[in-house]
Amino acid sequence: MSKGNLKVAIVGATGYAGCELIKILLCHPGATITSVSGKVEKAEKISDIFPVFKGRLDLVCDNVDVPAISKAADLIFLALPHKVSMLFVPDFLKAGKNVVDLSADYRLKDTAVYEKWYGAKHTSASLLKEAVYGLPELHKNEIEKSKFIANPGCYPTGSILGSAPLVSKGLVDTDQIIVDSKSGVTGAGRAASLALNFAEVNENFKAYKINQHQHMPEIDQELSNAAGSKIGVTFTPHLVPMNKGILSTIYFTLKKETSAAELLALYKQFYKDAPFVRVLDEGIFPETKHVYSTNFCDIGIKVTGRRVIVITAIDNLWKGAASQAVQNMNLMMGFGETAGLI
Amino acid sequence: MSKGNLKVAIVGATGYAGCELIKILLCHPGATITSVSGKVEKAEKISDIFPVFKGRLDLVCDNVDVPAISKAADLIFLALPHKVSMLFVPDFLKAGKNVVDLSADYRLKDTAVYEKWYGAKHTSASLLKEAVYGLPELHKNEIEKSKFIANPGCYPTGSILGSAPLVSKGLVDTDQIIVDSKSGVTGAGRAASLALNFAEVNENFKAYKINQHQHMPEIDQELSNAAGSKIGVTFTPHLVPMNKGILSTIYFTLKKETSAAELLALYKQFYKDAPFVRVLDEGIFPETKHVYSTNFCDIGIKVTGRRVIVITAIDNLWKGAASQAVQNMNLMMGFGETAGLI
Amino acid sequence: MSKGNLKVAIVGATGYAGCELIKILLCHPGATITSVSGKVEKAEKISDIFPVFKGRLDLVCDNVDVPAISKAADLIFLALPHKVSMLFVPDFLKAGKNVVDLSADYRLKDTAVYEKWYGAKHTSASLLKEAVYGLPELHKNEIEKSKFIANPGCYPTGSILGSAPLVSKGLVDTDQIIVDSKSGVTGAGRAASLALNFAEVNENFKAYKINQHQHMPEIDQELSNAAGSKIGVTFTPHLVPMNKGILSTIYFTLKKETSAAELLALYKQFYKDAPFVRVLDEGIFPETKHVYSTNFCDIGIKVTGRRVIVITAIDNLWKGAASQAVQNMNLMMGFGETAGLI
Amino acid sequence: MSKGNLKVAIVGATGYAGCELIKILLCHPGATITSVSGKVEKAEKISDIFPVFKGRLDLVCDNVDVPAISKAADLIFLALPHKVSMLFVPDFLKAGKNVVDLSADYRLKDTAVYEKWYGAKHTSASLLKEAVYGLPELHKNEIEKSKFIANPGCYPTGSILGSAPLVSKGLVDTDQIIVDSKSGVTGAGRAASLALNFAEVNENFKAYKINQHQHMPEIDQELSNAAGSKIGVTFTPHLVPMNKGILSTIYFTLKKETSAAELLALYKQFYKDAPFVRVLDEGIFPETKHVYSTNFCDIGIKVTGRRVIVITAIDNLWKGAASQAVQNMNLMMGFGETAGLI
Repeated sequence: MSKGNLKVAIVGATGYAGCELIKILLCHPGATITSVSGKVEKAEKISDIFPVFKGRLDLVCDNVDVPAISKAADLIFLALPHKVSMLFVPDFLKAGKNVVDLSADYRLKDTAVYEKWYGAKHTSASLLKEAVYGLPELHKNEIEKSKFIANPGCYPTGSILGSAPLVSKGLVDTDQIIVDSKSGVTGAGRAASLALNFAEVNENFKAYKINQHQHMPEIDQELSNAAGSKIGVTFTPHLVPMNKGILSTIYFTLKKETSAAELLALYKQFYKDAPFVRVLDEGIFPETKHVYSTNFCDIGIKVTGRRVIVITAIDNLWKGAASQAVQNMNLMMGFGETAGLI
Repeated sequence: MSKGNLKVAIVGATGYAGCELIKILLCHPGATITSVSGKVEKAEKISDIFPVFKGRLDLVCDNVDVPAISKAADLIFLALPHKVSMLFVPDFLKAGKNVVDLSADYRLKDTAVYEKWYGAKHTSASLLKEAVYGLPELHKNEIEKSKFIANPGCYPTGSILGSAPLVSKGLVDTDQIIVDSKSGVTGAGRAASLALNFAEVNENFKAYKINQHQHMPEIDQELSNAAGSKIGVTFTPHLVPMNKGILSTIYFTLKKETSAAELLALYKQFYKDAPFVRVLDEGIFPETKHVYSTNFCDIGIKVTGRRVIVITAIDNLWKGAASQAVQNMNLMMGFGETAGLI
Repeated sequence: MSKGNLKVAIVGATGYAGCELIKILLCHPGATITSVSGKVEKAEKISDIFPVFKGRLDLVCDNVDVPAISKAADLIFLALPHKVSMLFVPDFLKAGKNVVDLSADYRLKDTAVYEKWYGAKHTSASLLKEAVYGLPELHKNEIEKSKFIANPGCYPTGSILGSAPLVSKGLVDTDQIIVDSKSGVTGAGRAASLALNFAEVNENFKAYKINQHQHMPEIDQELSNAAGSKIGVTFTPHLVPMNKGILSTIYFTLKKETSAAELLALYKQFYKDAPFVRVLDEGIFPETKHVYSTNFCDIGIKVTGRRVIVITAIDNLWKGAASQAVQNMNLMMGFGETAGLI
Repeated sequence: MSKGNLKVAIVGATGYAGCELIKILLCHPGATITSVSGKVEKAEKISDIFPVFKGRLDLVCDNVDVPAISKAADLIFLALPHKVSMLFVPDFLKAGKNVVDLSADYRLKDTAVYEKWYGAKHTSASLLKEAVYGLPELHKNEIEKSKFIANPGCYPTGSILGSAPLVSKGLVDTDQIIVDSKSGVTGAGRAASLALNFAEVNENFKAYKINQHQHMPEIDQELSNAAGSKIGVTFTPHLVPMNKGILSTIYFTLKKETSAAELLALYKQFYKDAPFVRVLDEGIFPETKHVYSTNFCDIGIKVTGRRVIVITAIDNLWKGAASQAVQNMNLMMGFGETAGLI
């Protein structure tokens, strides 16, 4: 169906982000999927793994073979687990490919931070300086010039977009930022796990990795950059019994009282060139279904005295992973930021 | 099945809290349900309204008839909507009945606050001084001596139990309390509503009534009493696509650093006579399914520097409504606090 | 975003089928939505009703105004309730518009049958002979020549596609066809209803309208046509706690033993020109998620002795409503059957 | 809490049936749980495995130790996987214990059938003649006299109860029985499995093991006994995105036309001594939530011509497993059939 000229490969195609990448790219006017691969027990059609693609994409998915993939494609999406991605990225870059890495391996600029939070030595530190943190709303210019994108994490995407205007303008107490996030289950990846068994998750709600989730340093890094000073947020992720979506409720203390209207105006200005951020009108707040299977980040703001509550919603697999990766591809390849995206 | 001697009536039996009250009381050793009533179009068996009770409770449910109910029962549970309850409570009290009111009508001591948040004149203000706020963990002695209980709201139950030890000991900055709560759908009541249609709620997550939910002043009232000074919390409720359960994530700023172990010890001491509060071990946190269809409130605590995160879980229809009402009945009638409850 | 030349109107845009129609048409290369209308209390932007469309389709949705709509559009989709559609269809046809009616009003050729099952007089019987039953897999030629399509019901679509090859070839006992269907909740429409309240539907499974659902005569009509003799199926619909999808398990008795392989070959041949029917390989069976938000109907077959079990899956709002309507538009307007569809 | 005199052990306590057994037995007036065991990596409190029991049952759960368990308890519930149960049952019986086995190992009287469907040699065939198939509605007298019960499977329980009156009275064509069953996810057991991952099951509906589920021969055996002639049903199980409940839609062809009223009267007579079967009034049909966490089997009947549709609902973990096991215990031990059950 897709008749684009850019040949793209999806490495790590068997996970949830990989599946959404395929869905999006099959409808993209500028790209054609020429290779799918991942960790598989035996080679089989991707449409046997994800029968939704039967008749639409029947490529065989085999284990990762860098030379073969490099031959087949010009841009490589890696949707691999953390620590695995950095085993392959260097070779793809060396082969001159454009790379969009959806793992966490190249997001944190400080390897010490990476090693603390991911519990593993970083084996590809020299490439960190080449990786651009692929949040287009903050780094569009660098992305357009880059060949190597570290695609943001799902929690960080919604948290950073909801916080950046306030912290970059210096309006809030940076010691008191609390991010209370709620995510659908696909965020945990596509794997056998008793904790993710339907009967364990359905009719249940819980917090997890309370103030110690590995996405926290990523939020801190980007907000510190935006603020120009060190920020350490409080971050509590929760598991919602639904497939997709992240809602983040972010609490700030204003340095001085400011109305919701003023803050909304500030956000609209801040995101005036961001086609996928929708700042809602006063009194209207995001819901995850309003961004379901879209690349949008919706933002609503409530103010009471010096307390500001910013609420953001994204689809964790789209804006939080796959469609943001395509947005980055669009910028890198000059397709126009919105090409093939909703 | 139940062969208890106390004759009890359930007024407002057709809602979700009414249904759970029936379930609990049918197994209670000291009580027998002798009357069920509510707003109905035509009289019909309660087991036609809730077929789960077929063969177990086949009483006819008709509209509220105070004299008939007063004749049939000695203790009256009212599970009516706000504003409706105060139309009936005075007559039941005048008839000498014990009353447990699950509505909000008698929870707030200040009628001005009630009238602001519930948008209606309080027509029964003289009885407010007789009503005991029925949170047994804080007010057991008064409940035991009372004939009239204002049963707490669902959000306040979990929020107050999670906060009372810290605020009553003066350990936290009372200006910076943030309660981020997530509730199952039954909290919204049993009524036709497009917003509550399955297809609107399923695969969706949202916040609502952000910092303006009518349960907020109830939390403020009780925490102010516990602190001995005025407290106004920030409160954001959210809707979870599940039937039952509330998880509250409560953020505090400690006046001085204290370890999780010390705080957990404080909580265990504070609740040492509370059979339905379970303070979890360090590193263990509540999940709503662990309190599903029980009267328990589970509490977990995380500390990072001066930030404390307290997480509580209750079943919104049990500890947040029906089973707490039975706990109050137990205390009022001398049955033993845990009789018929799990 | 959509830049198509055909101007289309959606009448009944506020329901679930209307919403999906908008989603599909916004991405369609040949059509542009120029009008949305429906039964509304006050005119408001469609993107306020369905915030997912904010910034993508901000047309105002007002009550149905046939002249204004006829002026704005050349093809009219009606996604109105039964009995309401026939109030408007005649005027649109008189105005020379192409019409795709998603209601049941013009599906049944026999007004007596319509009036029995829908409990209302048919006020537009003279137009029935002009309406083509819009199941492209059976009636493609007529659809291509028609200006007026009666778009099939959701249950009939999956049931007929799963049965047509067997009955048209005369292979099965036509007195013994049993259709056991299971549908997501959106099939019941977008309306306030206690029975559809999340807490009533979630964690529940039930049958309803057992052997008396109004879609039964529609299945009978089409299968009778296919068989060339009168067929009356047994039909039991069930409600599944999910938003979208219908799985139909259809039981037949073969006149003589035939292998699954033979039957699958027959089905593949029967549907060789049907781009949206996927006959699965032996031993593979449909799941609703494999057709989620697609126009596909997946079919699997199991044979044991003379018993045949055919299982079909569709998305009730797509192939069972909105995308099938677009498929019909494609055929009517010469866009190519698959234009803008997945 | 439970103060019963009968000491009971639960072997296989870590699965979903084990968990429900604990819940039920904790409230049983005649039994006390004195031992819990199962396949565990390390010994730990059952309340750490199922935190819902914290403070209520804090026994340590270790691997199965027959002598220790035999010393601790007089009645043994085994809630182990098929093939594992028969490794332990002989020793418990030899030790003189009463045994209720929830696995399939002793349900099928014909070892050849067992070995075909379960793919393993039966190593304890000599005990099959001692095992009573524990469906109290059909075999109460034998259960009362037995020391060893093979507790029925979940699908068979609802299917047999819905079919037994019709087949035992010879009213239906026994060649044409179709059982279309729909089950919640706990039926698949408590284990890590990608296919049971929340995101795979939620918003999905599918059939599985179509006409080849291992519960089919169990249905056949019992219905053949009831009919006095060989019956082989058609059986299609489906997976519903919910935790608990089975609804079975069973299709029969009457030998001669009979009204629903007559059949309902027959069913009421047939089950007049069965406290846990509720035959519903004409026009009323079961829903799984009406039997949720109860021991009831609800039955509704629809007749059209010679077609009969019988619909039954049970809680797969209660009447389909744990509470039926307790019902069997009650009968064996003379507690009264309904003791401790709802």
